[in-house]
Amino acid sequence: MSVLTRTEINGVNVDGLVGTINAIERDSSLARFQFRAHNEWVSGAHSRTTIQGFYGAGQEDTSRRQPFTLEGDEPAVLLGSNTGPNAVEAVLHALASCLAAGFVYNAAAQGINVESLSFDLEGELDLRAFVGLSKDVRPGYEGIRVTYRVKSDAPRERVEALCQYVQDTSPVLDIIRNPVPVTVRLAR
Amino acid sequence: MSVLTRTEINGVNVDGLVGTINAIERDSSLARFQFRAHNEWVSGAHSRTTIQGFYGAGQEDTSRRQPFTLEGDEPAVLLGSNTGPNAVEAVLHALASCLAAGFVYNAAAQGINVESLSFDLEGELDLRAFVGLSKDVRPGYEGIRVTYRVKSDAPRERVEALCQYVQDTSPVLDIIRNPVPVTVRLAR
Repeated sequence: MSVLTRTEINGVNVDGLVGTINAIERDSSLARFQFRAHNEWVSGAHSRTTIQGFYGAGQEDTSRRQPFTLEGDEPAVLLGSNTGPNAVEAVLHALASCLAAGFVYNAAAQGINVESLSFDLEGELDLRAFVGLSKDVRPGYEGIRVTYRVKSDAPRERVEALCQYVQDTSPVLDIIRNPVPVTVRLAR
Repeated sequence: MSVLTRTEINGVNVDGLVGTINAIERDSSLARFQFRAHNEWVSGAHSRTTIQGFYGAGQEDTSRRQPFTLEGDEPAVLLGSNTGPNAVEAVLHALASCLAAGFVYNAAAQGINVESLSFDLEGELDLRAFVGLSKDVRPGYEGIRVTYRVKSDAPRERVEALCQYVQDTSPVLDIIRNPVPVTVRLAR
């Protein structure tokens, strides 16, 4: 039991975490990942994404026996059939799950025990660009607000510093805050 | 039956679509939406997002009787328990479902019948920023490649023009390609 308490904090294997960081420090090619998704349209706004394999840590990952399935749709007011959250809601999920994992991993690395952690997110969007009525408003979110709630054994200053560090290193926050080049190609 | 064939294309209520656009043209405040998500950390990299209410078209939406639930996690190689796709994979889902809905809605508005539509997405990411080993590489995707496949009754030039239009008006593509301000606040 004492081994477990030493190596696992917040459900994170801290020895594994340190081992991974050391391995990447020795060979930076292990840090190269390619993530993938496949999406099939169903009907109307409803489409279905499957996510399974990826490349990383120097090899193809085969740990997932079955693909994860995510439904995308729109609510009735946006002419969909409400079989899943819409695409911009899925962005909020991506951001929240990134901040959660980043917070918990870095807390574990610093020996901070997290008791609970939650996020509330709001994004403001003007639909006029999407429906073709304005070229002045942007199609995406004008802004996103994230509110964290944390219970932990660390003083507030340490939690605030951790919160800032997580923001500086969060993949999804970077994707949203900064430009990412995207190429879109119609297959022959 | 003839009414149905006239008003529904690709599973989209075209009269409803035109009605929505006309209503927004008369009153642009109807285009203002606020989308929301709530995320609770579970353990390790695993967190759970719930998505239900939003504001839009001048009122709070109450059409969803139950929240949608999305799991976020990491695979074992990234020290998670593989209970769901990770955050950057969720970004690919958000992008695909946005492009799918945008394509199908605009095809319907133009009278193009879509027989099938699918997307393959790949994103390249260097993990060194996330694990704190580099401030030179960005935490997020260096780039994303999207490949579309479409079967429809329209000639390829029209499909290509539609594909371009969808890119110009896609909310999630805009969010990824261009900066979005995000405020992150730790609640008292």
